[in-house]
Amino acid sequence: MAKVAFLLAPDFEDSEMKNPYDEVKKAGHETVIIGNARGVECAGKKRTVTYVTEIAASEANADELDAIVIPGGSAPEELRVNLDTVQLVKRLNEKSKVIAGICHGPQVMISADILKGKESTSYIGIRDDVINSGAEFLDEEVVVSGNIITSRTPKDEPAFIREILNKLR
Amino acid sequence: MAKVAFLLAPDFEDSEMKNPYDEVKKAGHETVIIGNARGVECAGKKRTVTYVTEIAASEANADELDAIVIPGGSAPEELRVNLDTVQLVKRLNEKSKVIAGICHGPQVMISADILKGKESTSYIGIRDDVINSGAEFLDEEVVVSGNIITSRTPKDEPAFIREILNKLR
Repeated sequence: MAKVAFLLAPDFEDSEMKNPYDEVKKAGHETVIIGNARGVECAGKKRTVTYVTEIAASEANADELDAIVIPGGSAPEELRVNLDTVQLVKRLNEKSKVIAGICHGPQVMISADILKGKESTSYIGIRDDVINSGAEFLDEEVVVSGNIITSRTPKDEPAFIREILNKLR
Repeated sequence: MAKVAFLLAPDFEDSEMKNPYDEVKKAGHETVIIGNARGVECAGKKRTVTYVTEIAASEANADELDAIVIPGGSAPEELRVNLDTVQLVKRLNEKSKVIAGICHGPQVMISADILKGKESTSYIGIRDDVINSGAEFLDEEVVVSGNIITSRTPKDEPAFIREILNKLR
């Protein structure tokens, strides 16, 4: 089975964390919640779920991770300005590990500069930023482009989760 | 005196609208609140102030406006995906009118593609998007680059307002 990291900060979009996290666990994979720092209590913006980061991005070993999932909401704006966090995503991309982001999640991919030449979708409000980062924007429920998986909104979660689990097989 | 538009949608950053708006009025300028549609009630994300949009961007006459101010918060993500709104900002820029954005306000400038070759600041969470849109990013309380004025956070409001009023003299 795979080891899957979830990249989290406060005010993430609740269901975009909870549903992929629950399904990845249910499929039997190992998980770890990574943040800018260790031990940070992160409540979803809708306050329906809370998680605590288990390790800091600076402590993560890219060789031991098979995939990283980046939920949306306001969290990605906090994650993308932390150099260690951005470096971890860059390192995982260099190793062609699975990198999955939904809604505002691709903001972290933009800051890690890993979307050039890829196809990507995102929440429509950051579409122009995805395009400016060098990706071809597709308005689809899920876009798989090499090792990168992206989706638009909570409604796309079933497709997003399906493609993550497909890649972990 | 000048005619100054404020570009608004729900969930703007309260003080980034209220303080520039009040000061521009106090200085004797005429104001108009423009949105994606006319008559939309816009509450600030902190719920301390509410404004109603007076006209839609599609109804605005760029020739009659001297400046447009774009407060931050979540509003710019809604404004930047409306073609009429983005077109209005483009037209004002072509006429070298004053375009001022604070915090997430520059997201609308990115979508209007008016930051190429300019110096700009913004909320740090969208810094990489400002850079990818072709601007030189400066971490300063206010950056004036030709007709474009940008600031980072509510703390920068005094400098932001000062430079807007300077340009309207």
